[in-house]
Amino acid sequence: MTERIMREGPPATGIVRNLPATVPFVAPEALERKMGRPLKLRLGANESAFGMSPKARQAMLDELERLAWYGDPESQELRAELATVHRTNTDNLIVGSGIDDLLGLIARTFIEPARTAVTSLGAYPTFNYFVAGCGGRIQPVPYRDDHNDLEALAARAIQTGARLVYLANPDNPTGTWHNANDLKDFVEQLPPNSLLLLDEAYSDFASSDILPPIDVDDSRVIRLRTFSKAHGMAGARIGFGIAASETVAVLNKIRVQFGVNRVAQAGALASLQDRDFVRGVASAVVEGRRDYQKLADDLGLTCLPSATNFVAIDMGSYERARATTEALLEQGVFVRMPGAAPLNRCIRVTVGVARDRALFGEVLSDVLAAEGSTRKQRATSAQSQL
Amino acid sequence: MTERIMREGPPATGIVRNLPATVPFVAPEALERKMGRPLKLRLGANESAFGMSPKARQAMLDELERLAWYGDPESQELRAELATVHRTNTDNLIVGSGIDDLLGLIARTFIEPARTAVTSLGAYPTFNYFVAGCGGRIQPVPYRDDHNDLEALAARAIQTGARLVYLANPDNPTGTWHNANDLKDFVEQLPPNSLLLLDEAYSDFASSDILPPIDVDDSRVIRLRTFSKAHGMAGARIGFGIAASETVAVLNKIRVQFGVNRVAQAGALASLQDRDFVRGVASAVVEGRRDYQKLADDLGLTCLPSATNFVAIDMGSYERARATTEALLEQGVFVRMPGAAPLNRCIRVTVGVARDRALFGEVLSDVLAAEGSTRKQRATSAQSQL
Repeated sequence: MTERIMREGPPATGIVRNLPATVPFVAPEALERKMGRPLKLRLGANESAFGMSPKARQAMLDELERLAWYGDPESQELRAELATVHRTNTDNLIVGSGIDDLLGLIARTFIEPARTAVTSLGAYPTFNYFVAGCGGRIQPVPYRDDHNDLEALAARAIQTGARLVYLANPDNPTGTWHNANDLKDFVEQLPPNSLLLLDEAYSDFASSDILPPIDVDDSRVIRLRTFSKAHGMAGARIGFGIAASETVAVLNKIRVQFGVNRVAQAGALASLQDRDFVRGVASAVVEGRRDYQKLADDLGLTCLPSATNFVAIDMGSYERARATTEALLEQGVFVRMPGAAPLNRCIRVTVGVARDRALFGEVLSDVLAAEGSTRKQRATSAQSQL
Repeated sequence: MTERIMREGPPATGIVRNLPATVPFVAPEALERKMGRPLKLRLGANESAFGMSPKARQAMLDELERLAWYGDPESQELRAELATVHRTNTDNLIVGSGIDDLLGLIARTFIEPARTAVTSLGAYPTFNYFVAGCGGRIQPVPYRDDHNDLEALAARAIQTGARLVYLANPDNPTGTWHNANDLKDFVEQLPPNSLLLLDEAYSDFASSDILPPIDVDDSRVIRLRTFSKAHGMAGARIGFGIAASETVAVLNKIRVQFGVNRVAQAGALASLQDRDFVRGVASAVVEGRRDYQKLADDLGLTCLPSATNFVAIDMGSYERARATTEALLEQGVFVRMPGAAPLNRCIRVTVGVARDRALFGEVLSDVLAAEGSTRKQRATSAQSQL
């Protein structure tokens, strides 16, 4: 190695240099590599064990034969179908490699150094990651009674002149929600020059009174949707945004044009046309949430209300939530804990198929029984020392 | 609509506001929509009509059954195989949704307003698009004898303190190349604090003396490779970078973690393990280039030398290249023209399978014959007016 080679590479931008090396989520595969064995149950990433529409599957099998060719960078067919379904124009729609990709694009479009973004404390870490990546500052607002605190979010947005306000409805990681009317009022309270990112990844599981009607003339809102949840296509990486055409036009100025997998586009189109499939998944998930509620009741625990494909089970304290998460992982069961207080007293468990739920119930019961006897032993041992 | 709704959305960043609405490439699908009919021959995007490895196909069919699950955001299995093939460590490798995605990431990591990037005039427009998207300034250096002018590129990099230098080798859109030794000298001439992006999308078609040995201790270079060309997986959107581990670490600070399609990862891994397939495609492409050379000879045209899966045919003038491109499109044959002089006297034609090449030969011959007779008519008519 010569001296010239030894020197460090070109300096990254000031923003990137100052960032920590971090990942928003540790992947299930990384956990498996660390443990040296595969997971038995993957209930931590809100993926859909109900799989995908057979029509989507067939469309993707067919499209795989055309994989040598670049996909349409404008996703015209998919956007046309989305426009029909959501009663918008195609120029109100933007397709990306999942909501994550779109959040990154939105951050780059609207956040520059010193600009702020408001979000609930402990909400979606990937949003915060992208805002930080653009030199923006996150203004976190605590949850209130396990709900996004709309009043406080709006107040903080006004106070800090926030350019972006991120809100998931139904919410992740709580599963709770606000109804459409409250959201409409919320938008009215936001300051001028702020844009609401309404992350509706879980909209397919929500009843219609939770989702405000789509009004693409309202340039204050971008709605984000995905094929990763109810459509069962998380691995395909495809999602979309619905917004005013001026907003879509400005995002199009800097997006990766050829970014979305061709097979994913075909699958999304076919899945969109199979409404019965998605409705069926949503019904199965309602049943699954009931099973988790019953399990919690049986174990003397409570659940947060949920309009999503997961349930946050209240373990009473951060310490117990953490011990439970670790003990479950030890048994090969992957769930997640919300990242910030007071939500980190919960474990967040994805609704799997019936067999998964039964197995989860068994393992959780065993874990808590073992924890109970350990606690009893500790208490006895502590007493005997008195 | 209330007054509040009428107002424009939140202002984009200063950089984005000042950008024009542009796309680096008009897609073949957009051309089809404009023409109102499908293309007969798609020879403009350097896709591989030779398709994909049967092993990759099978791996993707299998992986499609697991599409409900997010893919590994670290692409660990694929990176491990790439590390074996290229004799690097996994931390020298970064996987993205194609080279485009990686170019965007690299621009965001190293370009901030007022920083410059050097590239040949008329080279890859998508690179320029991403640099502009970060507020950077492109310093274009003319080609010299239809080759990247290494001396002038290095001089411009020194003169402007360029952070990034983009070079495709073998080159696109010319197909020409420099050999490995010249590239090694080129790297030595670059100023401190500049990073060479060596785009090797066409490396699978190049003989080994064109590709410098990979030295991941040299933090001055990022190599970019893709599964879109010889591997026949353009629609999958998957590519990778090879670089010093510090460079990969800094890119990882801001990349989209869950961006690459799961099926694409599985296909890339299987394709990588099927070396014979890629070698077979490369051989077939050599034969195809010979066919185009012969076609050009027959038509009294010359070709630029090519180490890629396309050939630039010299039409003698911009006007004739443009008229030919348009006349070909009228016949349903899609080829591209390089975007800047003096290369825009050429048409760039992808090597298709034998049947495609034969059809292309027929249509091009017809187009030129028609053009010739039009010219003769014009000359006659002009003469008769004298």
